[in-house]
Amino acid sequence: MLKIGNHVFKSRLFLGTGKFPDLEVQQQAVEASGTEVLTFAVRRLNLENPDAPNFLERLDLKKFTLLPNTAGAATAEEAVRIARLAKASGLCDMIKVEVIGDSRTLLPDPIETLKATEILVREGFTVLPYTSDDPILARHLQEVGAHAVMPGASPIGSGLGLLNPHYIKFIIEEAKVPVIVDAGVGSPADAAAAMELGADGVLLNTAVAGAKDPVLMAEAMKLAIEAGRKGYLAGRIAKKRYASASSPLEGMVD
Amino acid sequence: MLKIGNHVFKSRLFLGTGKFPDLEVQQQAVEASGTEVLTFAVRRLNLENPDAPNFLERLDLKKFTLLPNTAGAATAEEAVRIARLAKASGLCDMIKVEVIGDSRTLLPDPIETLKATEILVREGFTVLPYTSDDPILARHLQEVGAHAVMPGASPIGSGLGLLNPHYIKFIIEEAKVPVIVDAGVGSPADAAAAMELGADGVLLNTAVAGAKDPVLMAEAMKLAIEAGRKGYLAGRIAKKRYASASSPLEGMVD
Amino acid sequence: MLKIGNHVFKSRLFLGTGKFPDLEVQQQAVEASGTEVLTFAVRRLNLENPDAPNFLERLDLKKFTLLPNTAGAATAEEAVRIARLAKASGLCDMIKVEVIGDSRTLLPDPIETLKATEILVREGFTVLPYTSDDPILARHLQEVGAHAVMPGASPIGSGLGLLNPHYIKFIIEEAKVPVIVDAGVGSPADAAAAMELGADGVLLNTAVAGAKDPVLMAEAMKLAIEAGRKGYLAGRIAKKRYASASSPLEGMVD
Amino acid sequence: MLKIGNHVFKSRLFLGTGKFPDLEVQQQAVEASGTEVLTFAVRRLNLENPDAPNFLERLDLKKFTLLPNTAGAATAEEAVRIARLAKASGLCDMIKVEVIGDSRTLLPDPIETLKATEILVREGFTVLPYTSDDPILARHLQEVGAHAVMPGASPIGSGLGLLNPHYIKFIIEEAKVPVIVDAGVGSPADAAAAMELGADGVLLNTAVAGAKDPVLMAEAMKLAIEAGRKGYLAGRIAKKRYASASSPLEGMVD
Repeated sequence: MLKIGNHVFKSRLFLGTGKFPDLEVQQQAVEASGTEVLTFAVRRLNLENPDAPNFLERLDLKKFTLLPNTAGAATAEEAVRIARLAKASGLCDMIKVEVIGDSRTLLPDPIETLKATEILVREGFTVLPYTSDDPILARHLQEVGAHAVMPGASPIGSGLGLLNPHYIKFIIEEAKVPVIVDAGVGSPADAAAAMELGADGVLLNTAVAGAKDPVLMAEAMKLAIEAGRKGYLAGRIAKKRYASASSPLEGMVD
Repeated sequence: MLKIGNHVFKSRLFLGTGKFPDLEVQQQAVEASGTEVLTFAVRRLNLENPDAPNFLERLDLKKFTLLPNTAGAATAEEAVRIARLAKASGLCDMIKVEVIGDSRTLLPDPIETLKATEILVREGFTVLPYTSDDPILARHLQEVGAHAVMPGASPIGSGLGLLNPHYIKFIIEEAKVPVIVDAGVGSPADAAAAMELGADGVLLNTAVAGAKDPVLMAEAMKLAIEAGRKGYLAGRIAKKRYASASSPLEGMVD
Repeated sequence: MLKIGNHVFKSRLFLGTGKFPDLEVQQQAVEASGTEVLTFAVRRLNLENPDAPNFLERLDLKKFTLLPNTAGAATAEEAVRIARLAKASGLCDMIKVEVIGDSRTLLPDPIETLKATEILVREGFTVLPYTSDDPILARHLQEVGAHAVMPGASPIGSGLGLLNPHYIKFIIEEAKVPVIVDAGVGSPADAAAAMELGADGVLLNTAVAGAKDPVLMAEAMKLAIEAGRKGYLAGRIAKKRYASASSPLEGMVD
Repeated sequence: MLKIGNHVFKSRLFLGTGKFPDLEVQQQAVEASGTEVLTFAVRRLNLENPDAPNFLERLDLKKFTLLPNTAGAATAEEAVRIARLAKASGLCDMIKVEVIGDSRTLLPDPIETLKATEILVREGFTVLPYTSDDPILARHLQEVGAHAVMPGASPIGSGLGLLNPHYIKFIIEEAKVPVIVDAGVGSPADAAAAMELGADGVLLNTAVAGAKDPVLMAEAMKLAIEAGRKGYLAGRIAKKRYASASSPLEGMVD
């Protein structure tokens, strides 16, 4: 079971709701993924105009925990404002802090992310910051009270997978809160690899929504994350430079 | 469905039976894996002495297709002799040609593997040669009638995963028979990655039998192979050097 | 020519002076490397006790630009204090800010590094911060006036090479000051690869001092950095998935 | 010194002569590379028509050892015929066996390459077969008398570098003749990496001829191969998962 703040989840797959070809496919993919946590940009909700078309309208929101994110914020101040807006509208106590430092790479701003996290923790939010794979920054985020850390595998939507599994592993080895690998996962093997490092969960969006068949990919990702988790728990064999016979002809145990 | 010669399989996981800590664990792992194909070295059967302890005794062999291999052979001649022995004992018409060229790397001998494959096809076997990742050799093996090709991901038992996915992909792109990735897979992510290349199946042994918890790993591998297969069919997103917003704030379809 | 602050260098290899087996080897390696910049921890100088043995005593310091670093500092405050000490002793106006966040990984603390850089720039130092491969942090460091940025390839002394060339490349593409790849380089190929990304220089220490033959390795690194620089300027061929004949038999230009 | 058959070379860079933008650039690049061995397809020589334009006309062929190759051959028989033609025209006793199995990947045919090598060795040629990275095949080639083996790093002209350094290393560890890495090298770092594995030399063509500035790239490659060789001889540091201080503050030797 994955525990973040007061929330407990059986599924370790967090799913973004954007970029699907249509709402029908979105709904089916959400279902196929088995996710319990839906994420979306607060700014995409027309909070001021409840009659506008709503990209979440097909989903039975009572069945999910909502994880609104602060996408669109370039500073801690903006992120805090967006988070408060989300809370005021009764969406959720959870917030994914997303303070983007650059429009080309969409990588998070370490300084502003830390500031926003500190403020929102103090205001009582359950805070999950999207962060780089910097282990020292991940520690600082935990020191100011982050309820989970969400290091990116690679740039958002890039599908490049785990560019630096080494540092993600460092984060996991020292983490006192759940580590959710976020951004850049491209395929089921990527998701499984993240889980095999010992991650507590994976957040997906483009890899599912942008696949040729998003519903089938959602199902594939669900299986991959379970596979990676079990593989982690089962304790993989060590890597060896040379071979070792799998059909040994002497000295057999069996 | 995976079709090799006259055999049809729902599962795409082939499992070796050696190296398990004991026969109880072996039996449970076989079950957890969902495999329909069990592989083992003919030489490990005491064909001359039916009363000797039998490492397959716990398995209900009627439920599986047996894929005996010619491990221990260093030449085509030896492989052919072992294969005939297996057939004579009524085990199966399928044979995995395994002619090892080197005791340190356990890599297959390309010349002898091709010779043995040609002879055994002529003798009516359903032949699955264990081969290198050489696309030209894989083509020759098909030209002489191999019913599947089994390129190694890395040395047997090494757990190094796909050392050269590029050439495995070349083999798959041109193959007219199923491609079963064999040898070297270390973790569920490796297995998923092989399937995402378009492989038709994966053969595992050490990665399962040598895990701390072989039964749980067998289950993980089962899920990973399904995940990789579905991921392949679902059509993954292209890799991009830079980012693309997963929560786009304008121009949204939905 | 490499220009950092008011300093101009022909060599793009910066060399650390620690960890050599003895001072004789150190001296020869420094010479073989062709370096013009020597780096060392201020704390290792016995500034209070000028009669103590001095690990720089064999080197003709007038021939080099000295780049003292603040190793041993865990906070901006400590780094600033060490830097001032170095300046007071007349060593140099250049300082490498090194604020370590963790003794196991020796990765830099992003927050404290940025603070120390800002203060030392204001005090008139020529400041080169050792930083992570985070492109947003590298930009912030430049915004507060860093004269170069020194992203780590991998943990200090690990020899793991470029763990994330992707992000180092992002830093280089946007940099307005020289980028010196620091930490983790293990071999000449690693150094060449860093330069081929477009880095302006490479800082080495363990890879040279810890080699079996440090003097020969110093020479190898010198050549590799030149090779990588020229390779970058020469414009490498694009990578292609398939082959293209190098001995084309028709349509030849020549 | 590199010794192949009766030939001794100081340079470890073999250079192909095709694909240069013009003969002027070709000549300058050959010079900048410091190569002593020039390779070219026999078929590109107009052996029947000595008055036709000659792509080697700018080069002082007395200064180089010529390594004609059998490009264009798809079978051992064709390769042998081309080799005899080269010998009859007095070009050289050295021949690079190149029997291509596939026009898309230009990978060598293992069976035909072995056959051609065996025949040409018997006929007194100094034989250097272009081969895959299969260690067992490399051993067979040596058993039939190959004077060097030339495993490909990746498909000819692809620039993908060392796709499987692991198996190239296996070849080198067991080789009794020089190992020249051939095909696929894209950049100086690739060339250095091949040499650091312990290769005896590198054959280049597209990476130099196809660079934006072929002459500068030739120089870069020359330096990289020297750097990689020296790096190999100097004994690189071991890779470590975690850090080790390069400016240790206690227990210092110096």
